[in-house]
Amino acid sequence: MTKDDADLSLILHALADPTRRSILNRLAEKPARVTDLSEPTGLRLPTVMRHLSVLEDAGLIASSKEGRVRTCVIVPEALSPVRAWLDEHRATWEARLDRLEALATQIAKERAR
Amino acid sequence: MTKDDADLSLILHALADPTRRSILNRLAEKPARVTDLSEPTGLRLPTVMRHLSVLEDAGLIASSKEGRVRTCVIVPEALSPVRAWLDEHRATWEARLDRLEALATQIAKERAR
Repeated sequence: MTKDDADLSLILHALADPTRRSILNRLAEKPARVTDLSEPTGLRLPTVMRHLSVLEDAGLIASSKEGRVRTCVIVPEALSPVRAWLDEHRATWEARLDRLEALATQIAKERAR
Repeated sequence: MTKDDADLSLILHALADPTRRSILNRLAEKPARVTDLSEPTGLRLPTVMRHLSVLEDAGLIASSKEGRVRTCVIVPEALSPVRAWLDEHRATWEARLDRLEALATQIAKERAR
């Protein structure tokens, strides 16, 4: 497994959780303190911190601490490997879909005779 | 959590494993029997079957059985929810990136004075 592949796995794992995706949505609007992310969602602080740690390990967010206050920001370019993977596979997959459709049309025509 | 959100979580979880991504790459070329997927990769049959089950639960592949032979095919359109999620967030995230860049440029200019 290459480093890129390991990074992609970390990112996809981080995105695979709906709570983590909702945290990202929230941070996409503006940076937020850890308590800002906990209070409105009703999530307990340790739960939020665990999710933030997974997001930070994947490079999807960054955080900084001033005094006792930790602020989180998203790292938008961190989604690039997912986009690249999808684009890379799109061509192959779509070509395959086209062939399957052509085959289905052909079978349908033959049956109609 | 909506059904769409649950589906997206299943798909992202399935994609988060490098072995499962390599199985998808292999199936993107052409359908394959379970043994075809096991032999060249050196993966044990139960391991391959476990990964195939995760991929099938996420709707990324489909399989059919003829006699004792199970054949797997990819379901290319199953990646659509991931693409939709990325597109939906691209706009918000890129706008944020633009604002950050503008801010960085402004700070750099002020420092240069």
